[in-house]
Amino acid sequence: MIVAKIGGAAGISHDAFCADAAALIEGGQRLVIVHGGSDATTTLARSLGHEPKFITSPSGHTSRHTDARTLEIFQMACRGVVNQSLVLGLVRRGVRAVGISGIDAALWRGTRKSAVRAVEDGRTRIIRDDFSGTVDRVETTLLSTLLDAGFTPVISPPALSENNEPINTDADRAAARTAAALHADSLVLLSNVTGLLRAFPDESTLIKGVSIDRMDEAESLAQGRMKNKVLAAREAILAGVPRVVIADARAIDPISRAVRGVGTVFA
Amino acid sequence: MIVAKIGGAAGISHDAFCADAAALIEGGQRLVIVHGGSDATTTLARSLGHEPKFITSPSGHTSRHTDARTLEIFQMACRGVVNQSLVLGLVRRGVRAVGISGIDAALWRGTRKSAVRAVEDGRTRIIRDDFSGTVDRVETTLLSTLLDAGFTPVISPPALSENNEPINTDADRAAARTAAALHADSLVLLSNVTGLLRAFPDESTLIKGVSIDRMDEAESLAQGRMKNKVLAAREAILAGVPRVVIADARAIDPISRAVRGVGTVFA
Repeated sequence: MIVAKIGGAAGISHDAFCADAAALIEGGQRLVIVHGGSDATTTLARSLGHEPKFITSPSGHTSRHTDARTLEIFQMACRGVVNQSLVLGLVRRGVRAVGISGIDAALWRGTRKSAVRAVEDGRTRIIRDDFSGTVDRVETTLLSTLLDAGFTPVISPPALSENNEPINTDADRAAARTAAALHADSLVLLSNVTGLLRAFPDESTLIKGVSIDRMDEAESLAQGRMKNKVLAAREAILAGVPRVVIADARAIDPISRAVRGVGTVFA
Repeated sequence: MIVAKIGGAAGISHDAFCADAAALIEGGQRLVIVHGGSDATTTLARSLGHEPKFITSPSGHTSRHTDARTLEIFQMACRGVVNQSLVLGLVRRGVRAVGISGIDAALWRGTRKSAVRAVEDGRTRIIRDDFSGTVDRVETTLLSTLLDAGFTPVISPPALSENNEPINTDADRAAARTAAALHADSLVLLSNVTGLLRAFPDESTLIKGVSIDRMDEAESLAQGRMKNKVLAAREAILAGVPRVVIADARAIDPISRAVRGVGTVFA
């Protein structure tokens, strides 16, 4: 079983991803696909005149400020645009793909951060209208039901809070939780980078492997969105996933290539 | 087995529908839910500055002109707004609801109308950039897999054309096809009317029953959106569904009430 998370940044083609996924499934591989929708959300929010806002935490971590309207837009972008595009790309290649979100049958349960500390102009304030949080629990029955019947789940955010509210959740970390819950052999995190770089953005400084005792160092090297990927890799490894690969979504056969170890391998 | 289609017009509460659905499922009823997204599409299209356009056929039938951009908006509205709202309403009530669309695992196969005749200012022209069509075939494996495992499918348009394009499809008629394919006992079509009226909009003229030999008369009485509902009822009956009820979505327990025969019963 492979859990493959595909990013949505510029330069990433769903075509190569879907073609590789179809070939793997045709060959008998059990595959669960996870995606996010950050870039699609930004595009749609701008089209709707609801300018995206971001929160910088006191520790310097940046995340989307998901107010109630942004949550609606996020759902339209994730579920209506990105998810359906991936499902269509897979169905066109003969895969019996089924798009689901974290709220379907309460698949992804998470904890909403009811108060978020944000630094603005050097001052810290508390944001209370944010709908986001992390996935704590994955209810795998729906996934195993689909896989056992020959369907391929394509999972989209949001997750569902303990109070049954949809919450924006980081898809890399949700994929890590999903891989752990499914006892997957590999978690593959694909985006528009070749892997974790020692000196970002110099791709010749790719770190090929990170062992469990070097995770802290890896985290300290990660920049921007890579922070969440390294955190996801660590969480997956600690939760029992034997192998996590952060790899390039822009390559031909990106999933197979990552599984072969091209990228940054955490083990 | 009941297939229940819920409309999205003003005055329709998802709460009453979801509460009734939850009670029925709790009592052991197998239920498949279908919805459309016409009103949500119009709202979103206006917010995005893509003014909705409608086509009037030479026979006087009105339908949405679904150009490529409208198709995207339609998918965001159906899949990202209406479907997720229903799923959330059901999950909050303990139902293991799973939102799927007609393109997931090629559930709803249809035929795209490649050329649509439209009457404008008294002249007929051919529209070629329209992505819509009717569902010809329902692949029931996904639905029975979910139902057998205790999940409740909530099905959204679009359907999938023979060329693997998403197509806008009438959800009443797609629900009819779905009910027939599943050998459902009842198809319930809920909207913001009490049923088929002899003299629209006078609700005291409700037609309580339509037998198979009176279908033509029923069709001739139907106005506006009711035309598709009566057509759907006819198609379902002809395809072997024993009972179709067009009923009021605004009532308490709208599904149970319709199944009891409150509305217009086709049999």
